[in-house]
Order: sequence, then C-alpha cells, then structure tokens
Amino acid sequence: MQFTEEMFARHMRPITGSAIREVFKLLGKPGMISFAGGNPSNTALEPDVIARLSGEVLEKYGTTLLQYGATDGFMPFRESAAAFLNTEGVLGGAESLLPVQGGSQAFDLLLKALIDPGDVVLCESPTFLGAIQAMREYNAKLVAMLTDEGGVIVEAAEELIKKHHPKLMYVIPTFQNPTGITLACERRKALAALASKYGVVIAEDDPYRDLRYSGEALPPIQSFDEEGWVVYMSSFSKYISPGMRLGAAMVRNPMLLRKMVIGKQSADVHSPLLTQAIVDAYLRQGLMPGHIERICGGYAKQLNAMLEGFRHFPEGTVHTVPQGGLFVWAELPQGMDALEAFPKAVDANVAYVAGTYFYPDGGHERTMRLNFSMCEVPVIEEGMQRLGAVLREAAK
Amino acid sequence: MQFTEEMFARHMRPITGSAIREVFKLLGKPGMISFAGGNPSNTALEPDVIARLSGEVLEKYGTTLLQYGATDGFMPFRESAAAFLNTEGVLGGAESLLPVQGGSQAFDLLLKALIDPGDVVLCESPTFLGAIQAMREYNAKLVAMLTDEGGVIVEAAEELIKKHHPKLMYVIPTFQNPTGITLACERRKALAALASKYGVVIAEDDPYRDLRYSGEALPPIQSFDEEGWVVYMSSFSKYISPGMRLGAAMVRNPMLLRKMVIGKQSADVHSPLLTQAIVDAYLRQGLMPGHIERICGGYAKQLNAMLEGFRHFPEGTVHTVPQGGLFVWAELPQGMDALEAFPKAVDANVAYVAGTYFYPDGGHERTMRLNFSMCEVPVIEEGMQRLGAVLREAAK
Repeated sequence: MQFTEEMFARHMRPITGSAIREVFKLLGKPGMISFAGGNPSNTALEPDVIARLSGEVLEKYGTTLLQYGATDGFMPFRESAAAFLNTEGVLGGAESLLPVQGGSQAFDLLLKALIDPGDVVLCESPTFLGAIQAMREYNAKLVAMLTDEGGVIVEAAEELIKKHHPKLMYVIPTFQNPTGITLACERRKALAALASKYGVVIAEDDPYRDLRYSGEALPPIQSFDEEGWVVYMSSFSKYISPGMRLGAAMVRNPMLLRKMVIGKQSADVHSPLLTQAIVDAYLRQGLMPGHIERICGGYAKQLNAMLEGFRHFPEGTVHTVPQGGLFVWAELPQGMDALEAFPKAVDANVAYVAGTYFYPDGGHERTMRLNFSMCEVPVIEEGMQRLGAVLREAAK
Repeated sequence: MQFTEEMFARHMRPITGSAIREVFKLLGKPGMISFAGGNPSNTALEPDVIARLSGEVLEKYGTTLLQYGATDGFMPFRESAAAFLNTEGVLGGAESLLPVQGGSQAFDLLLKALIDPGDVVLCESPTFLGAIQAMREYNAKLVAMLTDEGGVIVEAAEELIKKHHPKLMYVIPTFQNPTGITLACERRKALAALASKYGVVIAEDDPYRDLRYSGEALPPIQSFDEEGWVVYMSSFSKYISPGMRLGAAMVRNPMLLRKMVIGKQSADVHSPLLTQAIVDAYLRQGLMPGHIERICGGYAKQLNAMLEGFRHFPEGTVHTVPQGGLFVWAELPQGMDALEAFPKAVDANVAYVAGTYFYPDGGHERTMRLNFSMCEVPVIEEGMQRLGAVLREAAK
C-alpha cells in the first residue's frame, strides 16, 4: 500500500514546518550578514567552562547522573534554578519547578495538559513562531490580542476573554520575540488579576528576562498571581547554551504540575541528568551574574549599532527601541513589502525575517524582525547600510 | 476562580500517572531487594568514560555543541548511530535517522504524527507501561493482539487489522518488556508483510536488542520492510546510560520522518548536542562491542541465578526463559494473586511488579514481572528465596 497524507493525524496535515527554517538555508552563502536568526552570540558560549563542570559533576555524582532520574527533576537543579528565577520575583520553590527541554517543552506540556481540539488560546500578534506551530499541533484556536508599545492591552484582552472563554493566554512579557516590546508593570498585575477572575491559565514565556541593557527589571506576571494561574517558563538557552536544551517551568498549581509531569513521563521520561547537573553547578558556583553582565555589555553595543543603522532605512520607517533581548522590530513605510524585498536583500548579502510569519493570521507585509546578537558591531553597521540601500531602492 | 479537573484536556483527565511509580517509592526501605525496576546495572555505567568523552567533544566542536542545532540531528551522531543499528539489519542511513530523547520520544512523536482521537493501535498484551500511557494521552483505542511464546500470533493480528483498521501496531520484538519473549523470525517477516498489505505503520521498539545472552541475533522487522512502513526505535539507555536520554528512530518513509521532525520542532527543538556528540564519540571510538560483551557477561549470570531461584516458588508456577534483556515473567498457580501478595513481599523485604499493570485491560492477577539487572547474583538468590517463601505461604 501507498502511504498518503491522509494517514497523518488531521490537525498535523496542514503543518509543514517553520517557513523561516527555509530562510535559514540561504544564510550559508559566503559574505552573508544575517539578522535573521535568534541565537545567542558565540562569544556568550563557554565550552571550556561546560567541559570543566561536566567533569566535576560526573566525578561528584558518578553513576547517579547516568541512571534513570525522576520525571519531576534532579533536586539540586530544581533548587538552584528556583533560586535563580526567584531573584526577579518569580514565586514558588524547588517543589514547583519542573525541568524541561527548553521553554518549548514547557509550553508543549502545558498545551498537552489543557487543550482539547478547538479550545481557544489568546496570544500576542505578532508572536513567537514556535509557539504558533505548537498551538496548531494541538488544534487550538488562536485568537490575537491587541497590543501597543506597552504590550497586551488589558481591556481588549478582557473583552476577548468574555467572548471566547479561552483556557490559556500565551504572553512573552519581556523583550518580546519578535517585537522587543516589554509588557508594562501595571499590565502585568492586571493580567494576573484577569487570569484569576476568569479562570484562564497564563503561559508567561520569559526567556530573555535577564538580557536587559537599560531600564529597571520588572516583576513577572507570576509575582502578582496569588492563586497559581500563571505558569512561568524560563530557559537557560539564551544565558548559557541553547544546544544543551534546558529550561524550567514554575508551576505553583500542584494539580497542573502533576498533569505536566504525567505528560513528560510519556514524552521523554525526564530531562537529561547531565545537563541538569551542569547548569546546577554553573548556578551554585556563582558564575551567572558575571556572565550575564559580560554578555549584556556586548549585546548593548550591538543593539545600539543596529538602532543607529536605521538612519540608512527609507524615510518613514518606524522601529521599536527595546531595552533588552535579541530583536528589533521595524515597519517600513506605506506601500512597501518586506517579504517582496527579501530576495533583493539576499542578493545584496544581508538577511532578516519578514514580519508576516509571526502573525497567526498573516498580513502585515511591511514588518520585519532584525536580530543583532549574532553579528559584531562593524558587521551590524555594514549590514544595516546594505539593507538600507536595498530598501531605499525598493521604495523608489 | 478555582482550578478544577474539568480544565484539563478531556483525555488527560483520567490519566493519573504510572501505578508502578508508587511501587518504586517503597523500594528505598533499608534491606529491600528489588526486582521491580528496569534500570541497567550501575556496573554497566561508566561516568569516567563519559566525563572523558564530554571533555573531548567540547574541545573538538567548541561552541557548535552549545549553539542551537538542527531538529533532525547532529550529523556525526546520525551517521554513527545508523551504522550501529545497521549491524543487525536495520535499513536506512543517517538521513533517515532521527535522534530522540530515548525510545519514549520516538513513540510519542509517531503518535503525534498519526493518531486522531479514537484511532486504533494494536499492541501486545502485556506490553510496556509507558507505551500504554502514551497511547492513552493521544486518546488512541488500544486493541490487544494475541501472543504466545513466539510473540504476536500473525493470523490473529491479521484478523484484528481487518476488523479494526488500525493506523499503528506497537511491538517490542526482542526480549519484550515485560515478558522477555522474542518475536520469532518468520513472524517478523510476516508482520512486515501485513504492514505493507494493509497500510499499517509498525512501531518496532527494540531497546534491548543487543543484550543477548544466548541464541542467535534475529533480523529486525524493519529488515523485511521494502516500503518504509516500519519505524525502528532504539535507545542508548540500556547500553550506555538512561540518564542521558538519547535514542534514535529509523524512519525510512520521508513524509513520516518530516512529520515527526515537525512534531519535534515544537516539542523540544532538538536533542541536546552534547549528549549526541558524547554517544557519537563512544561509537566511533569502538567502545560499544567490548562494553556490551562485558555487561552481557554479568547479566547472563544474573538471569541464570533468577531462573534457578524459581525452585523456591510454589509448585505450578510457570515462567519465561528469556535469551536476553532485563526481565523474566512469571505466572503463579491458579487461585493466586500477585497484586495481593505484594504487601507481604514488601514486608519480607523483596519487591516485584504485579503483572496486571502491563495489560491494557487489566486482569491477569496471577502474573508478575521480575527484573534481574539491578542485583548481584547472591542478592538475587536471597531475594528469590524470600519471595518464594512469601508466595508458598500465600498459596496455603
């Protein structure tokens, strides 16, 4: 017999994978300056430190690290990761912290626990592409919340809650991907209140929190949540290493934590003990504050170089001025199309991601996402000049 | 508002986690001899070797191992893992091999790709508990196939296929968990033919394959599959380390592989590069054959000790005589109940898992699973003596 598309689960059939993965294939071209990715800088990665810690923890814990572990995690890591998250006001302790394979798995397990086909999830628009795909894989109905320069507009979100009775709200509160926007403090408090009032779980996806280059740290949404409606999701990908795939979900509702643990039993039994022990040692040896300070120093200069580079862009271009994170978001003048300009940019050896991909409902062809973490300052200057020239030409 | 059970996804509500995880909590008792687990022996784990390889690969690949990687895997590992699986007749090369977080994730991604709620999956009965839970989480309808001492009875399976039109068949062909039974060679060939004739995907879960202590290696079901209906799932958990969580799925149908990769993008983006590189180095340095020979030597003695220990059991007990793997399966004489006897065994400081848990439809209270890999020979002798005494007492 012939294997056909109809053999796939119904909601998986239309999902053909991330469009921007196709974009990434173009980036191997020699001389290409890429603002398309979302990786940390290679200079933020420390293979020597990880090798040393790997040796230390394998000597310390021996066969324990190589045997099966508990699904709910390696207790030393749960403790040190909870302490790290708590520094900025995340609630809950080690017993509420679930180690996961990056923030992606935290969201996947939450969707698995909660979503029946057709259930509504509220999300920002634009939002993280991976989250859009994950929600579609669970056959959720995505409803976009209105946002402005302070993030989600609370009153509009409340109207949507009343209308759609969503089970879940997905928010990236700090230096949002793709826009770089940070949710205002009073809105964080108000969203926590909405969650509690209407019984909506909030997935607070906060992987960039500590990559702050200016302004004051804001308390997480979870810090305002007295009843346990907010699941706080973090990751060590942007701080220590994406390739190690280690994140943490802080789930203060024990019923919900238990259901996510059950989902993880079947998904992968537990997160690797070696990576949990390495990150635990990293945190306990006090390496994180100095490391974050060092990488933020570099990223701040790169962000500034990118912001200055917008002087090369067509007049009328608007862009965000993020206080941290990895991305700047731009909107080209009326009549322009960032998707259409993309092949010309690639010809000129510079790349970005067209913003339309980040909208659950598409459209918004004038927008684009620019990443600054993977290029040194002079490269950013050169790239912005190239891109500006392409766009000015396209604007004619 | 109050969070209630009704907020969970419908099919997740009744799933309350593995019953045998509760059993495992009893095993910390001092002096307890446990035949309940399924872990490799601690003597099979090599923290020094893993520490050395970890240092070597981090030096060799540097920041590459700490950056984001491709969802479809780290190419050197895909190559060496494919070569390792191919030794026994698995088909497909590196481009068909998907690195996963243990065999569990391979099955999870396959279910995600294929199963709509209510779809039928054929499985052995008894079968692996984790697989039962995973299938229930996708709301699959489990239909048990008849088996005998040669594994799945092909004619009966064909009748079930005609009746239920399953999308998927789940089989553990070699040293099955929980029974230790191996699927006969001609039946492997016949199942591959059924898959192709009726368009059923076979999930061939084969994590114990190389833990063979007697008899000849058999070709995998996949080796008879000309059309790509069989997904071969393996794992390095039982050979190198379960705590590292690394396995591999060999998926020769490119459409199906692509859909599993898409599922993995959302689930965890990719498997950690560090663990892929460590296992790759282990394989390329030629450490596997000697390691497997060494651990099989030990396990063979432990298995024999356990088989001999059945002389202490009540008359009329029958048990399997596996040629490898980690488990022996026993059926107590008529009228006895292994679940009922369990607390008495725990009082006598010996533990096992009642067989009823491994049946999708329950029942079969006379059966039990005994693991021999975690106890040295004298401990096995003592434990079988204790257990035999408890059961003989219960038989009175």
